Amino acid sequence: MRTEGRHLLVEYHGCPSARLNDVGAVESILNDAAVAAGATVVQSAFHPFRPQGVSGVVILAESHLSVHTWPEAGYAAVDLYTCGAVDAEAAHVWMARALGARRSDLVWVDRGHLGAARSIAVRGDGGADP
Amino acid sequence: MRTEGRHLLVEYHGCPSARLNDVGAVESILNDAAVAAGATVVQSAFHPFRPQGVSGVVILAESHLSVHTWPEAGYAAVDLYTCGAVDAEAAHVWMARALGARRSDLVWVDRGHLGAARSIAVRGDGGADP
Repeated sequence: MRTEGRHLLVEYHGCPSARLNDVGAVESILNDAAVAAGATVVQSAFHPFRPQGVSGVVILAESHLSVHTWPEAGYAAVDLYTCGAVDAEAAHVWMARALGARRSDLVWVDRGHLGAARSIAVRGDGGADP
Repeated sequence: MRTEGRHLLVEYHGCPSARLNDVGAVESILNDAAVAAGATVVQSAFHPFRPQGVSGVVILAESHLSVHTWPEAGYAAVDLYTCGAVDAEAAHVWMARALGARRSDLVWVDRGHLGAARSIAVRGDGGADP
């Protein structure tokens, strides 16, 4: 019995606002990212907000992939929680490119034994933007 | 324009396995937790796995609440990502009680500026179980 999971928290900056406000595009990008990661999509639920912004989740056989966008800021917050053999980095690379991000910040969290941790390191991708 | 969010990562241990394997019960618990937090539910998507386990997500007007359960381990992993005036602690207290957890471990992550962080602290709730 394995409860271990890898949870990738990512923030994308400098994305074109029109893309972040297109619920169909955002849903396609996340579903394609799941496929790029080798994950299996079980359900997909996305919601457009007014005046702007999109929230959505793809439930995977291996856990989930979620997104919240702030088109007015060119910003998207993504979570990819996976168990088993899923290539989360591939999903990240896909999303960064498809969302047109100029910079991204990533945090990896090992799930299943948070109680054993004391702190979690944060790293950026060295993108050009401050 | 505010992109700030508070992201609560929680792991519940020592939960009754039958409850964690009841997709209807788990969906009700998460929806009720969202209400307890003062959040607004937009969509709810839950999926039972075979032979066991449940994954589900509640999309909120204020972001999302997700769960993955491992009934065989009495374990559930929850994420509550919120923006605005949401009482995440109230949701946590509700879920801990409704899931019958004997112990929980929590991590708070400030979203919207991960790139400014160097590390994230982890804390347990001091539950009785190791």
